[in-house]
Amino acid sequence: MSKLVNSIREAIQLSGLKDGMTVSFHHHLRNGDFVLNMVMEQVAAMGIKDINVNASSLFDTHLPLQEHIENGVVTGIAADYISAPLGKLISRGILEKPVQFRTHGGRPSDICLGRTPIDVAFIAAPTADPMGNCSGKYGKSACGSLGYAYADAMHARKVVVITDNLVPYPLMDFSISEDFVDYVVTVDAIGNPKGIVSGTTQITRDPVGLVMAQHAAKVIQNSGLLKDGFSFQTGAGGASLAAAKFLKDIMLKEGIQGSFGLGGITGYMVDMLQAGCFKSLMDVQCFDLKAVESLRTNPNHQEISAMQYASPSSRSAVVDSLDVVILGATEIDTDFNVNVHTDSNGYIMGGSGGHSDTAAGAKLSMIIAPMFRARLPIVTDRVNCISTPGKDIDVLVTQGGIAVNPKNQELTQRLKDAGLPIIDIHELKEKTERITGKPKAIAKGDRVVADVISRDGDLLDQIYNVK
Amino acid sequence: MSKLVNSIREAIQLSGLKDGMTVSFHHHLRNGDFVLNMVMEQVAAMGIKDINVNASSLFDTHLPLQEHIENGVVTGIAADYISAPLGKLISRGILEKPVQFRTHGGRPSDICLGRTPIDVAFIAAPTADPMGNCSGKYGKSACGSLGYAYADAMHARKVVVITDNLVPYPLMDFSISEDFVDYVVTVDAIGNPKGIVSGTTQITRDPVGLVMAQHAAKVIQNSGLLKDGFSFQTGAGGASLAAAKFLKDIMLKEGIQGSFGLGGITGYMVDMLQAGCFKSLMDVQCFDLKAVESLRTNPNHQEISAMQYASPSSRSAVVDSLDVVILGATEIDTDFNVNVHTDSNGYIMGGSGGHSDTAAGAKLSMIIAPMFRARLPIVTDRVNCISTPGKDIDVLVTQGGIAVNPKNQELTQRLKDAGLPIIDIHELKEKTERITGKPKAIAKGDRVVADVISRDGDLLDQIYNVK
Repeated sequence: MSKLVNSIREAIQLSGLKDGMTVSFHHHLRNGDFVLNMVMEQVAAMGIKDINVNASSLFDTHLPLQEHIENGVVTGIAADYISAPLGKLISRGILEKPVQFRTHGGRPSDICLGRTPIDVAFIAAPTADPMGNCSGKYGKSACGSLGYAYADAMHARKVVVITDNLVPYPLMDFSISEDFVDYVVTVDAIGNPKGIVSGTTQITRDPVGLVMAQHAAKVIQNSGLLKDGFSFQTGAGGASLAAAKFLKDIMLKEGIQGSFGLGGITGYMVDMLQAGCFKSLMDVQCFDLKAVESLRTNPNHQEISAMQYASPSSRSAVVDSLDVVILGATEIDTDFNVNVHTDSNGYIMGGSGGHSDTAAGAKLSMIIAPMFRARLPIVTDRVNCISTPGKDIDVLVTQGGIAVNPKNQELTQRLKDAGLPIIDIHELKEKTERITGKPKAIAKGDRVVADVISRDGDLLDQIYNVK
Repeated sequence: MSKLVNSIREAIQLSGLKDGMTVSFHHHLRNGDFVLNMVMEQVAAMGIKDINVNASSLFDTHLPLQEHIENGVVTGIAADYISAPLGKLISRGILEKPVQFRTHGGRPSDICLGRTPIDVAFIAAPTADPMGNCSGKYGKSACGSLGYAYADAMHARKVVVITDNLVPYPLMDFSISEDFVDYVVTVDAIGNPKGIVSGTTQITRDPVGLVMAQHAAKVIQNSGLLKDGFSFQTGAGGASLAAAKFLKDIMLKEGIQGSFGLGGITGYMVDMLQAGCFKSLMDVQCFDLKAVESLRTNPNHQEISAMQYASPSSRSAVVDSLDVVILGATEIDTDFNVNVHTDSNGYIMGGSGGHSDTAAGAKLSMIIAPMFRARLPIVTDRVNCISTPGKDIDVLVTQGGIAVNPKNQELTQRLKDAGLPIIDIHELKEKTERITGKPKAIAKGDRVVADVISRDGDLLDQIYNVK
């Protein structure tokens, strides 16, 4: 018995995929992913129409979806993040049905609860055996964790594993086990390794970024949370990484041993693990080769599923135990609502990913952002899209001052006592506008192009077309 | 946030357990398990009645269930195996409703399919953290694999982890993850280590057993299956272990590298792994300390869930890839049906465990049994209980000859060509009865005390009370 089939086409045929059904993909191969395009090309070639694509994230490399949308092959998209090229097309109205934006925790939650059934899940697997046991840790296209693929594998009607590194049965140290897999397909390459691990930028050298990063580290240092057992997540942006670097220095100097680092894991977090800042890393996705190598070899670097990472319907998720998260924003308003979905012109260029999930879970959710970008202020009266509600955001750190959500009286006092430049968010807005001038409001279109669904499954906001 | 509660009683209260509900337990602590008795004592003390106990197996140590049955606390039992003391009471009719016997693959299958809902699952965890991540590999009560507990954890309405080794969050290398766990309770001891790892007997020194073992090894050697990539499961009985020993010698001599060893894993299988007879072990349960140590330290020794081990509703299970399994029998009939549920007097003293699952999956299913025990022949016209249907049994090995299921013409010829003492099963029966005399039929009672449910969920047989 073997589940090997000859081609992606044969796997699609055997899966029973028909017009109107839903296919799913995970995004661990990031901008290096070949699998989504290969599958959708076959779906199109087979004349299947009206397909709903449920992908944990969509990157620049997935732009061929444009043609499938124009040809009616794809008529619905659900994702937690959509990068600019496709996002812009969606904002221009290419898709009739609004995109369904979820979070990295909300997506597996809705899959597990049966709210978003998947007909056929396609698992891009850097290593697999002929029965479908598979792993992201090994092979030429190794991407590390397969955290976002677990829900799809466990709940899809049919599961197809696509690999470019078939090994003899049974694969050890698998992430997804054969009991969930229907078919296995081998291809020459599931992705371009350069694109797979492209997530990590360098620590910023920009003076503004370094000031923000210094502020961020000091906020954490004085929050009351930085003590033995401390847990931490940060993004892969330059200022966030610089903040992590400053934090590392503080932890080493003060001899603080944290509990765990969480999230999409970068080499910088691996450095912190190796330096003893954390006892462990909890990894739903690897951003670079150093993280992949660490996950493969360090027993204190643990792969976790997206349900365990962030699902609000899990009995608990790791985000519920998180002390501090550093997050970004394209806009934040005076109620601390954050937008990470649309750019300054209203075009879709991102999505929540784990933003809302970590913000909801962490004891201290910090936004790092410059006061303005291209003369557009970061603080507005009202964000153009609520990605994460203000109730879940505690602090905004800019180079022009640190605004604390008024709900956090104790934290405000702590930071004031530490001599940090605390500023009311309204004041920060005015201070910024004195430099940039008042921005013009974006002219929204009259058609909804995306629903932003909160991690709990409610409609949080809607994104309109850009004229 | 923490899921720690003060006592088992508090966990039961919080779980909402009420009259008429179902609780579940796994059996990795075997005859050393304290957890089932501790929980049921509390259930009784709280005045809860009419409880259905769904346990993967019940051992001598669980005899306190007698009192709970007599008091109406427990009114239903589902299990894959019930050892003699409790089995005898059930055969005498202590329980009004028939016991529901399943297999180690059928039980998780029925749980996953929603056929046997569990209200509250109790996970005996040798190590756990305060959020419920847990493992059997570490701690003073280490039992190794927690394979049989996965289905319970993933599908029960509420999940309680009970541990005697609480470690700081987050536990690395967990088997069951926090996203499935509601409450965590610490107790002084979840089991008696001596009883936990009592499963393995020694290799037989009995001349009859050694003859059977030699025959068994030669059957495998000449089956056409013993070549590179060979996979194998054997039980923990003395003759089965001796057969494994002889097989090991053959494999080493002939330089055959097998693929995997499967099952409840003993130190003898670990020896075979270390000697290079297998590339890996797939482990749903550890039978001794050597297996526990190997699972903890050898990356080629892999824990698997019961769904992956043997569930017929999994997309595939490891048993589907199995070449040879050696199994026991209390009786086998001339249609090759096997009884492992009842003893020669008709009393319940066992159950299928993985018997039916491995027999159905393996290419060669071999029964090793002596021609007679205590002057009672092993071969009968009709077994008193069909545990595994004859269609799934290929060979019966006794000291008085080797009977091959007539469906296997090619195998018969191979074994004859090898000079092995092949005998028709009817002839074997007569040959035995010439020694023992014809046995008297057991006088069955008129009340069904147990339903034997096949791995696919159908009623396979029924066991009647003993007068």
